[in-house]
Amino acid sequence: VGRGVLERLARELAAEPPGRPLVPISDDRVAVLHAEPLARRLRHGGVEVLPVLRFPAGEASKIRETKARLEDQLLRLGVGRDAAILAVGGGVTGDLAGFVASTWCRGIPVVHVPTSLVAMADAALGGKTAVNARGAKNRVGTFHQPWGVYADVSLLATLPDAEYANGMAEVVKTAAVGDASLFRWLEGAVERLLARAPAAQAHAVEACLRVKARIVRRDERDCGRRAALNFGHTVAHAIEAASAYREPHGRAVALGMCAEARLACRRTGFPASHLRRLETLLAALGLPTRLPAGRRWGTRSLLAAARSDKKARAGRLRCALPRRLGRMPAGDDVTCEIDDAALSAALGALAARGPRSD
Amino acid sequence: VGRGVLERLARELAAEPPGRPLVPISDDRVAVLHAEPLARRLRHGGVEVLPVLRFPAGEASKIRETKARLEDQLLRLGVGRDAAILAVGGGVTGDLAGFVASTWCRGIPVVHVPTSLVAMADAALGGKTAVNARGAKNRVGTFHQPWGVYADVSLLATLPDAEYANGMAEVVKTAAVGDASLFRWLEGAVERLLARAPAAQAHAVEACLRVKARIVRRDERDCGRRAALNFGHTVAHAIEAASAYREPHGRAVALGMCAEARLACRRTGFPASHLRRLETLLAALGLPTRLPAGRRWGTRSLLAAARSDKKARAGRLRCALPRRLGRMPAGDDVTCEIDDAALSAALGALAARGPRSD
Repeated sequence: VGRGVLERLARELAAEPPGRPLVPISDDRVAVLHAEPLARRLRHGGVEVLPVLRFPAGEASKIRETKARLEDQLLRLGVGRDAAILAVGGGVTGDLAGFVASTWCRGIPVVHVPTSLVAMADAALGGKTAVNARGAKNRVGTFHQPWGVYADVSLLATLPDAEYANGMAEVVKTAAVGDASLFRWLEGAVERLLARAPAAQAHAVEACLRVKARIVRRDERDCGRRAALNFGHTVAHAIEAASAYREPHGRAVALGMCAEARLACRRTGFPASHLRRLETLLAALGLPTRLPAGRRWGTRSLLAAARSDKKARAGRLRCALPRRLGRMPAGDDVTCEIDDAALSAALGALAARGPRSD
Repeated sequence: VGRGVLERLARELAAEPPGRPLVPISDDRVAVLHAEPLARRLRHGGVEVLPVLRFPAGEASKIRETKARLEDQLLRLGVGRDAAILAVGGGVTGDLAGFVASTWCRGIPVVHVPTSLVAMADAALGGKTAVNARGAKNRVGTFHQPWGVYADVSLLATLPDAEYANGMAEVVKTAAVGDASLFRWLEGAVERLLARAPAAQAHAVEACLRVKARIVRRDERDCGRRAALNFGHTVAHAIEAASAYREPHGRAVALGMCAEARLACRRTGFPASHLRRLETLLAALGLPTRLPAGRRWGTRSLLAAARSDKKARAGRLRCALPRRLGRMPAGDDVTCEIDDAALSAALGALAARGPRSD
């Protein structure tokens, strides 16, 4: 993590490449901004790098058909089991390119160069890969740990404001489930983070990766405590589905955390003062804490979407709920079963026009 | 392994199912013969079993599109991460259903009920899953160890003769790379095996699974000694590709072993007498030892296909070559690099019209 980390990547890949050749995968937008320049730099350093494989930017590309098209390109290029994938991009690229790597010749290494805040602070670490299937989020995928993750915060300079704010939602989430002091630090660093001060960004990213690594190490396959990282996500996935993915992931996670923190107030004793701190921090970072006013989807479609989520075990909905900011419940199961009435109430509170409604 | 093993499966699934519900996957033909009766038996025993998901029988179904169609059916049935797959069928079904299981919600358990000899003696064990991609064999897949493998040799009664002989090729291969005494036993058991005597079948299957388990345990991810199981397969895959998959896998493996044993004679000191024993056993079991006379593909297209195989590391072809029947070379790398001239010569010997040509 840090500035100049890509130079280190170039050195390490030249000295001991995880595979040969290296195949960069990137979306159309990031290919021009970051993947092509990085590929040139690596080639200059003597690393064997194939042309950048591209796909159209956006969540709509995170599907099985895009994976098959990338595989067809690997076939045409004669890529075998000695190769490695270089995923350069945001969460979509990491999930998609990681999935391609995990099944190519039954698994070749992947190196992640995250270029968005959400990918740096969260998605690139932990080995989860996936694509959506007919709208079902992340339904088809694998666990495939990366050979390395190289997060250069200077790449965040080209990130659109909206995407930057989206990434902040995962930063706040990570602090909320695993690091109370990071949460306090964030509350005091809002200005620096919004100004994209590299030192502040690097601190936030590195602290998030520490929390995530600690959690994933204990539960790589997501059988227990890793569910902590899903705080806000059960409701977020429902919001994304109900809005036909017009609501971006980070905004949906912000809203999801607000709803699930309300559930936590009843179920785990999450303090009401912490709910207010959470809402205040999210709002300060430019994230929503109330459902958008002009939306076409009601709380009823949200409820239906929540129930069809793959985290609904045996038809019952479960949410990962913190006990307080930075602290999850003890034990292997950090989730609570949520009945429809409680969920309705929590969603209803989000729908209410409050002072922070946008 | 054995007769009556499906009763044990029913008991074990009722007592402690690997997932709920259980989703059987089978091809059209095996669904009627075995999967539906097994599903009924399991339901009768109190196991929650969904309708059998089917796909058209044959290697042509082992592609990404079939996997996507099966996933669409899982979506429609609302199958989540608590489910498990029950793969009932031959090698194609095991590879395909295992791959579906390995990526559904990032991996759910799979139980294999192999119904062909090749699946019982070889394919169902070891965790390899895959589909073909535009003719490239097993190019996209995973390692996903099954929850269990239940091989009931009484199911072999319905297996067509040609498929039975194909399975024998893998039995012979397994003996050739890992069990000299099994090889000798096979030489003396040809009549009983051809008569499909259950006790002989069970002995052969169990001995093969012991060899395979021993090899896979040491090298699950196929980084070294597991390559032993590819004896005959480098050339076999080339034969399958050059014949546009008209040559069945088992016959191709028989031919591949004959070619690669010739290479072994030069490279590892494989005794010429062992080459003769190998050819004699294969022929006695109804398998070819010379390329078919009326074929449309020449040895040149075989060479081209061999070179494009994914086992061709960095463009160079490698074959796993035994030192003698039942014994591989020591060390982690059991493969030899083969140059085009040597391969040409070995293929030329197969093309020659010999006494065992068919």
